[in-house]
Amino acid sequence: MKLPYFKTEQWMTDHEQKAVYNLTDTCVEPLKLSEILAMDEEGILKDMPLDYGTITGDTRLKREILKLYETGKEDSLTMTAGCSQANELVMETLLEKGDHVIAFMPGYEQFIRLPQSFGCEVSVLPLYEENRWQPDMKDVLKAWKPNTKMVLINDPNNPTGIRFEASFMEALICRCRESEAWILCDEVYRDFESPSISDRYEKGIATDSFSKMFSLAGLRLGWIKADPELIERINCRRDYSLISTGPLSDAMGLTALCHKDEILARSRHIIQTNIEAVKQWLVTEKRAHVQFPEEGTVCFLKYDIPVDSRTVSEELLGEYGVFFVPGWCFDCENHLRFGLTRDPERMAEGLKLFSRYMNEKTAA
Amino acid sequence: MKLPYFKTEQWMTDHEQKAVYNLTDTCVEPLKLSEILAMDEEGILKDMPLDYGTITGDTRLKREILKLYETGKEDSLTMTAGCSQANELVMETLLEKGDHVIAFMPGYEQFIRLPQSFGCEVSVLPLYEENRWQPDMKDVLKAWKPNTKMVLINDPNNPTGIRFEASFMEALICRCRESEAWILCDEVYRDFESPSISDRYEKGIATDSFSKMFSLAGLRLGWIKADPELIERINCRRDYSLISTGPLSDAMGLTALCHKDEILARSRHIIQTNIEAVKQWLVTEKRAHVQFPEEGTVCFLKYDIPVDSRTVSEELLGEYGVFFVPGWCFDCENHLRFGLTRDPERMAEGLKLFSRYMNEKTAA
Repeated sequence: MKLPYFKTEQWMTDHEQKAVYNLTDTCVEPLKLSEILAMDEEGILKDMPLDYGTITGDTRLKREILKLYETGKEDSLTMTAGCSQANELVMETLLEKGDHVIAFMPGYEQFIRLPQSFGCEVSVLPLYEENRWQPDMKDVLKAWKPNTKMVLINDPNNPTGIRFEASFMEALICRCRESEAWILCDEVYRDFESPSISDRYEKGIATDSFSKMFSLAGLRLGWIKADPELIERINCRRDYSLISTGPLSDAMGLTALCHKDEILARSRHIIQTNIEAVKQWLVTEKRAHVQFPEEGTVCFLKYDIPVDSRTVSEELLGEYGVFFVPGWCFDCENHLRFGLTRDPERMAEGLKLFSRYMNEKTAA
Repeated sequence: MKLPYFKTEQWMTDHEQKAVYNLTDTCVEPLKLSEILAMDEEGILKDMPLDYGTITGDTRLKREILKLYETGKEDSLTMTAGCSQANELVMETLLEKGDHVIAFMPGYEQFIRLPQSFGCEVSVLPLYEENRWQPDMKDVLKAWKPNTKMVLINDPNNPTGIRFEASFMEALICRCRESEAWILCDEVYRDFESPSISDRYEKGIATDSFSKMFSLAGLRLGWIKADPELIERINCRRDYSLISTGPLSDAMGLTALCHKDEILARSRHIIQTNIEAVKQWLVTEKRAHVQFPEEGTVCFLKYDIPVDSRTVSEELLGEYGVFFVPGWCFDCENHLRFGLTRDPERMAEGLKLFSRYMNEKTAA
């Protein structure tokens, strides 16, 4: 099935290796295997046989994941190879040629291109920067069709990091319920204290992973949480994609969840320190603007120089080693995807170089 | 997209937990994390940051994988979450609604159901047990259509374990070349000394993994080897499915490959000892017949009692804890998928119980 390049992923693949100052990484400074082994007081990891493990995911792991939610049982969950596969499996299970779906931009390109490749019609609605990157329920009602089957959102949004307001979500759920439409919500940037769609709407499907706030992208471990009947249907499709996520990733995920307070505290501290560093930079750098998110690891930086975002990103990387994903990847010019995840001192150095680059461009 | 249950996978999920004597497992007795850590002389594993790693797979890992083949460069490879995802990505990249493909039964159900779910027409051709489970080239020529785009095979076959004869493969390649058709060959049961389709046909696509002969199913690490131009197209589709296989699995795979002689020798020894145990059982058990494969971990057992394979499998498991996947999962009655992978003594005990069960059934 024909698909164009996934712009963000392709950009990362093509450019990331050259990064000296990675200001776009959305995964908190990664943990190491030795750190997880040290947390494994029970010693389950080292002597675990590396077979397929439990096909739909380890039971203890699922019990710990459920603690990140208000509702659900073990069979409300199935494990996946990361959050993107979680999203893919949901779409593959539910969407058919001829269905209509609603997505938003800026947003995660997978939610537009995959349904299109299945032969679905996709309405892409805007998020309004001037209104703190919120969607407008009027747009949703206008786009709604008799065959609207699913609304696809990232909440917190990728790349803005900002959550949709409660009033919008309530209205959206209400409209979806009327038509028995699904809401697929990629919650990979959620900080696990805020609401999940799967706790608020019976046809709400939450996807998530260990990649962002848990600093364990390397586990490639994600999950889907939804109504058990839907999970059973997804598991049927899932058997054609992966056998299992494997007992090692499952057990490392379990170990991390048993130490979630310390891991999440570490992540929040790193993010907060980075936000402070950016705020300090913004005091003197008037050509840049950031609406900071309340949770998660990502935000969307706006800059005021008259250079397109691909050129900015390429020149910054080539000349200074400063790495951003351009807003072009999200159909949103004069923006850069900005990750609040790495060493704050390097972040501050990178931002200085970004200012120097903007000086050169405006002087020229 | 609508898919029926994957019969083999569903059978495993529903029944495997009850197995006392697992006589159907196709992965050689799994290695442990501690064993891989002990092989890691360079100490790369423990202090590796668990980030996404190299998106399409670690370069050193790819170099070591290439040693399992006669041809290819690093960009002839991309890494996947196991061999089933490798197969899925190939099919998703190349197949379109309206294409015709050819597959074989008994064989891997994924190769029939996934293309059907895309709207492809699938011709399912028989393997002839009386001819050592070989296909007949005449069947292929008869089934061929102007829109035949791909031939899908497991070689060694799943579940018979037997390779297609060289003369058939030559004729098949010749016919495919004439029509520029692809051959997707799942080589997960290959013992790495025999030929690979990717070394013999320019449109041959090999998929494989660490799950069977490397005893590392728990890594969930597979790969696709094909022409670099196709790999680039697959990587485009792959970005919508997974970000990467992750640095931990990649590095563990690399470590295993650096010790492949000892790991493969261990696997061959286990398989051979099991084959001897089965042969000894067959001397007195005349109601069972096995055509042993030259390589790999799986074979297909035929039994002579008048009970269907699902009943045999369910009763054997319920009464004696002896676990098989029934031939029913491969549309092939009076057969059981038989794995040559576990402890030979337990295997022998399980087989004795199987004989006792057959005694009861024929006495009744």
